[in-house]
Amino acid sequence: MTDTPNARHTIFGDQHDRILERLARLDPDLATYIRDFAYDTIYDRPGLDLKTKELIACALLTSLGSPPELRTHLRGARRAGATDQDIRETLLLCIPYLGFPRVVAALAHLQDMTE
Amino acid sequence: MTDTPNARHTIFGDQHDRILERLARLDPDLATYIRDFAYDTIYDRPGLDLKTKELIACALLTSLGSPPELRTHLRGARRAGATDQDIRETLLLCIPYLGFPRVVAALAHLQDMTE
Amino acid sequence: MTDTPNARHTIFGDQHDRILERLARLDPDLATYIRDFAYDTIYDRPGLDLKTKELIACALLTSLGSPPELRTHLRGARRAGATDQDIRETLLLCIPYLGFPRVVAALAHLQDMTE
Amino acid sequence: MTDTPNARHTIFGDQHDRILERLARLDPDLATYIRDFAYDTIYDRPGLDLKTKELIACALLTSLGSPPELRTHLRGARRAGATDQDIRETLLLCIPYLGFPRVVAALAHLQDMTE
Amino acid sequence: MTDTPNARHTIFGDQHDRILERLARLDPDLATYIRDFAYDTIYDRPGLDLKTKELIACALLTSLGSPPELRTHLRGARRAGATDQDIRETLLLCIPYLGFPRVVAALAHLQDMTE
Amino acid sequence: MTDTPNARHTIFGDQHDRILERLARLDPDLATYIRDFAYDTIYDRPGLDLKTKELIACALLTSLGSPPELRTHLRGARRAGATDQDIRETLLLCIPYLGFPRVVAALAHLQDMTE
Repeated sequence: MTDTPNARHTIFGDQHDRILERLARLDPDLATYIRDFAYDTIYDRPGLDLKTKELIACALLTSLGSPPELRTHLRGARRAGATDQDIRETLLLCIPYLGFPRVVAALAHLQDMTE
Repeated sequence: MTDTPNARHTIFGDQHDRILERLARLDPDLATYIRDFAYDTIYDRPGLDLKTKELIACALLTSLGSPPELRTHLRGARRAGATDQDIRETLLLCIPYLGFPRVVAALAHLQDMTE
Repeated sequence: MTDTPNARHTIFGDQHDRILERLARLDPDLATYIRDFAYDTIYDRPGLDLKTKELIACALLTSLGSPPELRTHLRGARRAGATDQDIRETLLLCIPYLGFPRVVAALAHLQDMTE
Repeated sequence: MTDTPNARHTIFGDQHDRILERLARLDPDLATYIRDFAYDTIYDRPGLDLKTKELIACALLTSLGSPPELRTHLRGARRAGATDQDIRETLLLCIPYLGFPRVVAALAHLQDMTE
Repeated sequence: MTDTPNARHTIFGDQHDRILERLARLDPDLATYIRDFAYDTIYDRPGLDLKTKELIACALLTSLGSPPELRTHLRGARRAGATDQDIRETLLLCIPYLGFPRVVAALAHLQDMTE
Repeated sequence: MTDTPNARHTIFGDQHDRILERLARLDPDLATYIRDFAYDTIYDRPGLDLKTKELIACALLTSLGSPPELRTHLRGARRAGATDQDIRETLLLCIPYLGFPRVVAALAHLQDMTE
């Protein structure tokens, strides 16, 4: 796949092709929807910087409790310029809204990626 | 209540005293926990700027579907310096994570506050 | 409807017939399932006392955010012998698990019933 | 708006233009995403008949607890050929998966539309 | 256990006894409730065909994110006559309602069962 | 860590130090918030006995579907004086509110701890 670098390339980094191939094996149309709608339509909207978008994504995935996507966007936040402290602050900010269990789970994923 | 202005004062704005009094009528300890823990401990952590925190809060409350708190933080995001376009972009970014119904509901609250 | 008084009669109190008639207007089979399965099978199990069961129900409905059922079981907890302080403690205990918005909403329902 | 009739026209019926105009007032891009992605891409996929799709949508919206969208798709299910009994069976099937409160709420919306 | 074949036998297939024995080891009353209420009362209601019911169940379990039950009903949908393409269409239809993460997780379970 | 025994010590039992050290490795401030706010502020409130609080916690964690915290509080309920039958009744009471899948998952955790 060759295309102009955009948010999707930054977020997925060197895992870009592997992630899209994994999604295409699940369902080719799913991979197309994620690439064309989720990333190239929604994520590429102007306005917010990519780092802010990825911190918001990390908070939403903490709420959903979806481990694979959370790990993808914890890495994506780093690739978009967030420090681990930025990510940590985002997850701690979820406590008053979501309670502790979801935040503990998200911080455990962050720790797994750091060790 | 007299205290040093902080995130809580910015977010609540001229509704500060009214909001805390409403919470205190629900339960005095609840009001204390929200003031001392949610705001003066969690929100006052350094690291992220308040505008980013409020955009994250708007996304989390779109996920939870809690109208009164969502309205409080849609206003809080504005008071922290977010433009309506920043807020709108935050809500649209929720689509790939949460689907359309939660986002439509959140945008309807934003519209109600604008008219 | 004449039947031996059980948990269902205590929880619904003098609203018993009105509640079952409202459910039967929604769907007669639904009313039967709620009466025979939810109440006369699950709620009538021995082991826990009814007050404890109703406090657990209030916590679960705070999590679900279902206003009509929450109000029914806030009243049911009172009818089963819980004080308003018992109910209040149950709702406050939800904070670390669910965060603040769901608890604020539940306490507002409790307040509405008291005024 | 003039376009070839498809799932969207059947589901929205004579409310089609009103619904899309309401969405466009919330946010023009949101309306475009719902029309072009949710309906004209996802809903127009071949395979399942529209009646089955709408019954699935009613079950999902019972799970989400999103009243306006639930009402739209309760009506949409009828317009796609589902009888009220088909819809009722769909909602009752949700009981073992979601418990009673969400189903009671959904049946109340169905009743409101019938009276 | 010998009983007249019904929805439960079709959905569980040759795993019928193993599934009910596993549930009975968790709790004998739980197994009874699932057999007698969830299956022999709710699932055996006339009206919708079993294939449609199982597609609805797959959508609901995609929403809940409950892997063991989702796998049981992905298999149950097949046993009730759904093709893998029917199931795939059901999961893709969840995207506008639930967003992508839940659907990716469900499609991964479908893929695991196919390989 | 040396401090006056309270709810936290009873709930965590001989795992007290290990649990707080694990949380502190995730994030030192998180561990402080859980200790000082969740336990020493919320859990130490007078009113409800600790056994009732832990049964409520088990029900809430069944709703959230958070395995590590559920296991901690299934053990905590035992340490606070609940019998396995009390816990089992609490989980079965969740069926009408949450449906079967969440309850099956919670009972599987209880079984894993017993074998």
